[in-house]
Amino acid sequence: MSKVIATYLIHDEKDIEKKAEGIALGLTVGTWTDLPQLEREQLRKHKGEVVHIQVLEDSERTNRYFGKRLKRAIVQIAYPTANFSADIPALLTTVFGKLSLDGEVRLLDITFSNEWKKQFPGPRFGIDGIRQKVDVYDRPLLMSIFKGVIGRDIAYLTEQLKQQALGGVDLVKDDEILFDSDLLPFEKRITAGKAVLNEVYEKTGKRTLYAVNLTGKTFELKEKAKRAVELGADILLFNVFAYGLDVLQGLREDKEIAIPIMAHPAFSGALTPSEFYGIKASLLLGKLLRLAGADFVLFPSPYGSVALDKEEALSIAAALTDEKEPFKRSFPVPSAGIHPGLVPLLFRDFGRDSIVNAGGGIHGHPDGAEGGGKAFRAAIAAVLADKSLHEAARENDALRKAIDLWGAIEVTS
Amino acid sequence: MSKVIATYLIHDEKDIEKKAEGIALGLTVGTWTDLPQLEREQLRKHKGEVVHIQVLEDSERTNRYFGKRLKRAIVQIAYPTANFSADIPALLTTVFGKLSLDGEVRLLDITFSNEWKKQFPGPRFGIDGIRQKVDVYDRPLLMSIFKGVIGRDIAYLTEQLKQQALGGVDLVKDDEILFDSDLLPFEKRITAGKAVLNEVYEKTGKRTLYAVNLTGKTFELKEKAKRAVELGADILLFNVFAYGLDVLQGLREDKEIAIPIMAHPAFSGALTPSEFYGIKASLLLGKLLRLAGADFVLFPSPYGSVALDKEEALSIAAALTDEKEPFKRSFPVPSAGIHPGLVPLLFRDFGRDSIVNAGGGIHGHPDGAEGGGKAFRAAIAAVLADKSLHEAARENDALRKAIDLWGAIEVTS
Repeated sequence: MSKVIATYLIHDEKDIEKKAEGIALGLTVGTWTDLPQLEREQLRKHKGEVVHIQVLEDSERTNRYFGKRLKRAIVQIAYPTANFSADIPALLTTVFGKLSLDGEVRLLDITFSNEWKKQFPGPRFGIDGIRQKVDVYDRPLLMSIFKGVIGRDIAYLTEQLKQQALGGVDLVKDDEILFDSDLLPFEKRITAGKAVLNEVYEKTGKRTLYAVNLTGKTFELKEKAKRAVELGADILLFNVFAYGLDVLQGLREDKEIAIPIMAHPAFSGALTPSEFYGIKASLLLGKLLRLAGADFVLFPSPYGSVALDKEEALSIAAALTDEKEPFKRSFPVPSAGIHPGLVPLLFRDFGRDSIVNAGGGIHGHPDGAEGGGKAFRAAIAAVLADKSLHEAARENDALRKAIDLWGAIEVTS
Repeated sequence: MSKVIATYLIHDEKDIEKKAEGIALGLTVGTWTDLPQLEREQLRKHKGEVVHIQVLEDSERTNRYFGKRLKRAIVQIAYPTANFSADIPALLTTVFGKLSLDGEVRLLDITFSNEWKKQFPGPRFGIDGIRQKVDVYDRPLLMSIFKGVIGRDIAYLTEQLKQQALGGVDLVKDDEILFDSDLLPFEKRITAGKAVLNEVYEKTGKRTLYAVNLTGKTFELKEKAKRAVELGADILLFNVFAYGLDVLQGLREDKEIAIPIMAHPAFSGALTPSEFYGIKASLLLGKLLRLAGADFVLFPSPYGSVALDKEEALSIAAALTDEKEPFKRSFPVPSAGIHPGLVPLLFRDFGRDSIVNAGGGIHGHPDGAEGGGKAFRAAIAAVLADKSLHEAARENDALRKAIDLWGAIEVTS
């Protein structure tokens, strides 16, 4: 009998065991001890079960915060997959639907049987597929973000794209707040972007891919995405949490939308940061985005101003690349506050199979976006050659200027 | 120039005004003071603006919790609607996308220009349309919920439906954790449910409507909903937060899905309960669900074990029924922990235009679901006649038994 096991942090004034039992029954067969033997036989395979309770020490911090004495425990509950259909909305409604409203409860993890996982797609391309597309196999990829394009026109956008590509970045992504507009229409961004990236390729021999932001109403996304594919779009950027995880999965599963999907974490901060409520980031941004099919996952880096706790950021990356999963690996993209001087840290923490992603750290370079890209590429090359950034900067003007401006954190191996 | 104004609770160690300015620019044109005059002219209509900052007193509770001194303020920021498309994902990504990840920020409210609102549907039927469907105009409606039907079959479901209908309830809703299964297939629930409700109507002359849970993958929902309409389904129950607000809107806007939609709050507790993060319930469950088109909105009542703060519950109901909005009104359905003895409280707090919704308070009645329904109907009649429940119970056996079991809270007017 296939089961899904959810792990929660639960608080209760009274009896945690009783509360856990109440959840396991309340979210499955409803009652148990009152049932006649015959009905129990019939319902046994639908009954939820408390698998484990790890009682935590009382926390003065928690008690003071809530103004009452609370018992705390990590509770694992198993839900038979016979009870729900194999889709993410059914999963979320079962394990954290009503329960999300029931006091101080946080969803920490969900583990799935391998049988159940088979019903989900995972990434279409994953890290290896993306590496083939950019033809780069031996280093972290480099991505940059458009800057301040709202209210601008196509000429402005393509000039900025060109500068970024000339710097040698592998990928350029739309700003997540850039929507389809008269000034910067979705289709025109794809075609004009493609033209300018081809120009740069003719000149430099370096391919840069452009992730265009797929926006609009849910039920129009597929047609729009198909049109993007027809026009030769490289990658779709997608604000998955403003839509729904299952919308991402629907796009991934459509055979006519066979290009990579980049998941942006916008709005996910409404769900993850509280220590008492919501969902742990490694589950939401890691395990579930990979299950649903994101080829890339952006998440806050542990270094910038919009920062995630380092352990949390590492656990997202671990979930995206865990080799034990039956899915292709998703590319971790730790983002925000990244400049060339942080590349050694990024490499130490996230390794070769990650993406260095920068906005201000590209565009704010004294020589502009082109210089920014070059500085990053030099920093990545230095780290791979086991050179310090300061050493590499002596031979690379762009990197030197970046380090003069932002500093550098060397990592001694 | 049309604007959307978002209201936040913001915490910052340093300068809140500077932080607010950073948000207003960062989520719109990016920079401002560095721009040449000509570009400013071009971008002015895209520039975000800090509209108001209400500095709050320092909170020792907050400082102790975060282990640092934080400034606190209610901040209002105006975003030009020229920057984004008129859909909820674009709205959420703009006003609470990246920002949701940026420290201790909670989204409290969003106000829209009337021009922008016109692009949203609101409920297709609303309170008045639902009243016509059930042919009840002068009292709160009564709804009951199936109990423990997971793992059961159609015969069990229809028998339970019949008992509930015989008690005189206006509406019966599926459990939100009941999905499409071999035992209880979606289409069969509709047709078998309809048959038994017609039987009861033949016998009693009372119409009861059945809200069937619309589940499955997002991109299959519309076909499934259309099939439901063809089969004569009365109402669609929908776990909107496990999908996305825009999915609800997409269903509402489809002319071939012209039946009422009932929004369930499952999973919304992952977004609303923290005082520092996430989204205020009155915005998410009130204003936005109405904008997107929910005819009914369930939310935790202030009375039960799964309880919402009373002020919060009232503010949801207020947003759903605010007469100043250009939309039809959505039916507020305060749920959880409701028994007949709470009807005077419910009526005092939520008024005539609300729905009394009970699960255990129907099925747990000594005479079963039929008795439960009758007790509730008697309690509603008593309140409207300005009688105390104890007085009414002297003439109504079902109500007396309910009060003996659960007690009653009388409200003196």
